[in-house]
Amino acid sequence: MREKQIEFFWDAASPYSYLAATRIEALAARSGATVLWKPFLLGKAFEASGNRMPASVPAKAKYMSADLQLWARYYREPLNFPKLFPINSVLPLRCACAAEALGDQAKFALAVLRAYWVDGADITQPQAIETAADNAGLDGALLLQHSQTQAAKDLLRANTDDAIRRDVFGAPTFFVGETMFWGNDRMALLETVLADQLPA
Amino acid sequence: MREKQIEFFWDAASPYSYLAATRIEALAARSGATVLWKPFLLGKAFEASGNRMPASVPAKAKYMSADLQLWARYYREPLNFPKLFPINSVLPLRCACAAEALGDQAKFALAVLRAYWVDGADITQPQAIETAADNAGLDGALLLQHSQTQAAKDLLRANTDDAIRRDVFGAPTFFVGETMFWGNDRMALLETVLADQLPA
Repeated sequence: MREKQIEFFWDAASPYSYLAATRIEALAARSGATVLWKPFLLGKAFEASGNRMPASVPAKAKYMSADLQLWARYYREPLNFPKLFPINSVLPLRCACAAEALGDQAKFALAVLRAYWVDGADITQPQAIETAADNAGLDGALLLQHSQTQAAKDLLRANTDDAIRRDVFGAPTFFVGETMFWGNDRMALLETVLADQLPA
Repeated sequence: MREKQIEFFWDAASPYSYLAATRIEALAARSGATVLWKPFLLGKAFEASGNRMPASVPAKAKYMSADLQLWARYYREPLNFPKLFPINSVLPLRCACAAEALGDQAKFALAVLRAYWVDGADITQPQAIETAADNAGLDGALLLQHSQTQAAKDLLRANTDDAIRRDVFGAPTFFVGETMFWGNDRMALLETVLADQLPA
């Protein structure tokens, strides 16, 4: 039997991506699946789909702020909405692409997401990324260096193009095969599908 | 101890309201809570909040169509996306308001939601509503008659104004006190809050 795979499209600028990132590896382990972390530029998917960031509707932004705190408590994870929001996430995402080539992308992704969504670090800046990576036991300087390679740039573009081609319009978005799951709040449904426990 | 109450804002034109409606009474029973069914005009909340119906973004509409089927299977409930969509839900919602005055609003709400979201009935028409109500063991003719009273019209307006005042921007929306939960997908979180099991 082919191993099950979860493609996990995430953007460092997305709070629900952070929440999902804290849970996806454990979900996969329970499900006998692996996670393919796919950093992508959510802003480009908004442009391509005609969707808008949720926070652009004031009532939704207000709700999201409270909702994120409920989810964080539910997950027993810290979350402090950063003062600097939204951000241009190209640099941290290129670093995530470099991290994939160098080894543990999950570890880097969680490190940079926590730096931003817990500690409020300005992850548009190389120094903040280097510190976060170093603290996670990675080689921050090497990651930053690799983030400037054509390979890292190409991978981020390829992931983003792939997301757009597959009609991704928000983040996080998961795929199992071509079945799409949009949102941190779809993880229970995703797990049910992975277990082949969804009634016909 | 005061009994816990869930305010359940729903619109007959909202498929996720239908899904939530099939589950909310059982959730409340498990939680020792009661449900206050509040039919409201979602379109007015979209206007007031600047939000748009999800299906207005093509990629989101495509996703919703598949997502609704996954949820329906997950809940073991039928769901057939109606050919006639969206609809003007004023008449079925006024009938729901009349049903509250006459007795069992939950029973009527489920009957009219199933008529539309399962059987594809045109619930903008009195005859379809009467049939759905009669089949659920209610007096359809009486409900339709009461739906034309000022009391029924006022209740629908009051619920809609209440939703807008409390920054509702989508459906279904639940409140426990002033804590808002937006979406069928927030029911697990809602249940955790009702059980006082959310970590501090």
